[in-house]
Amino acid sequence: VPALALDALPGLPEVRPGDDLAGLLAAAGARLDPPLGPADVLAVAHKVVSKAEGRVRTLADVEPGERARALAAEHGKDARHVQVILDETSELLRADRGRLICRTRHGFVCANAGVDQSNTGAADVVLLPLDPDASARALFAALGVGAVVITDSWGRAWRHGQIEVAIGCAGLAPLVDLRAARDRDGRALAATMIAVADEAAAAADLVRSKGSGEPAVRVRGLSAYFSGDVNGAAALVRPPEEDLFR
Amino acid sequence: VPALALDALPGLPEVRPGDDLAGLLAAAGARLDPPLGPADVLAVAHKVVSKAEGRVRTLADVEPGERARALAAEHGKDARHVQVILDETSELLRADRGRLICRTRHGFVCANAGVDQSNTGAADVVLLPLDPDASARALFAALGVGAVVITDSWGRAWRHGQIEVAIGCAGLAPLVDLRAARDRDGRALAATMIAVADEAAAAADLVRSKGSGEPAVRVRGLSAYFSGDVNGAAALVRPPEEDLFR
Repeated sequence: VPALALDALPGLPEVRPGDDLAGLLAAAGARLDPPLGPADVLAVAHKVVSKAEGRVRTLADVEPGERARALAAEHGKDARHVQVILDETSELLRADRGRLICRTRHGFVCANAGVDQSNTGAADVVLLPLDPDASARALFAALGVGAVVITDSWGRAWRHGQIEVAIGCAGLAPLVDLRAARDRDGRALAATMIAVADEAAAAADLVRSKGSGEPAVRVRGLSAYFSGDVNGAAALVRPPEEDLFR
Repeated sequence: VPALALDALPGLPEVRPGDDLAGLLAAAGARLDPPLGPADVLAVAHKVVSKAEGRVRTLADVEPGERARALAAEHGKDARHVQVILDETSELLRADRGRLICRTRHGFVCANAGVDQSNTGAADVVLLPLDPDASARALFAALGVGAVVITDSWGRAWRHGQIEVAIGCAGLAPLVDLRAARDRDGRALAATMIAVADEAAAAADLVRSKGSGEPAVRVRGLSAYFSGDVNGAAALVRPPEEDLFR
């Protein structure tokens, strides 16, 4: 048995607003061998969560304001899309060459405030869940798994490429403090809070990336980090007053 | 067989300058079941690579200059440690409340230019490898594995906690371009270069974090991303001229 093992949940259908996502995930998880259970972390791409929660907007219904039209013209974007991004943004940190780096209402710093145009029907855009930790807790309660992580794919300031991160979590410690641990020389390890929920999100994406198209991944081997009660991914957000890169 | 499976290499001894790291890794990898082989990615924490390559310094031999003494006094740090950090730094991006955020000579942006005080003998500090991609290529050539990723643990600008990233790699595509893929609606997926090497580094850390203390982790299931030839982690570095957060 490997120390860590990951598998995509097979056969999840396209998710639409109002769908019973927990029911769809439970049915897909039952087809795993062994079936999805209390020893497992379930990592779910936020897009299906957002869709099930109705966090989508139809661009045809969006009336862009003056700021959205100006930004769209400057950066070669759809003004209606920019308006939706601004609606999700608490602070626009950078606008440069088509890139809008936003602090969302949750406090996340990411491109386009997490508003995504891809893989949706017609002209809709998909927003982040209103409260991704609440979304994770709801799935956690419904599914009987060890933990749920809700993920999104983000770029990084100084690195090319995107990696998957945790935007919501329940049942899993998002940060594990290894500062109490001692190294081989007995020295206290400094500055080693490990963002376990983010690493779990990244690991899950490796399974998903291979063209599987599956939004949900089961991760086995993380029960040492199960927290039982509520430990949201909000704890991963560095508050603006500690931010060196505004 | 899980789609992705990870195991720490057991029984690797403490590594010292001049040690044959490839030999030590091969011996430890042979103890895995099945043994380490050409279908595997080997993720190695840079610290053992740096130690084997002699990338350590003894603080007692460091004479701090004026700038290091000033920064150390301002931020409550050891001036000799700060001098070593400055020696590894091409640009000091931020110095704030004890945090020195540096661009290293490789172009990496990370705290303390990757200079690490923990888990080393006596007063030594451990530096990053001079050329982590070359270090990865050497292990790749010696071990007969599918790929090698050399990793370090970094903080993030807007997130609490550290995650493991790829600072060197060989045999694995560091970035996978999914832009050519189509979503379910036939729309081209935008901006989806996945930093597979970083996600593999993060996944490996989940095995290592559980107190195993093991620096090397075998990852199975990533052969779809094997590149055969040289694909270094240098491709993950966003050049300063594209940097929105200097």
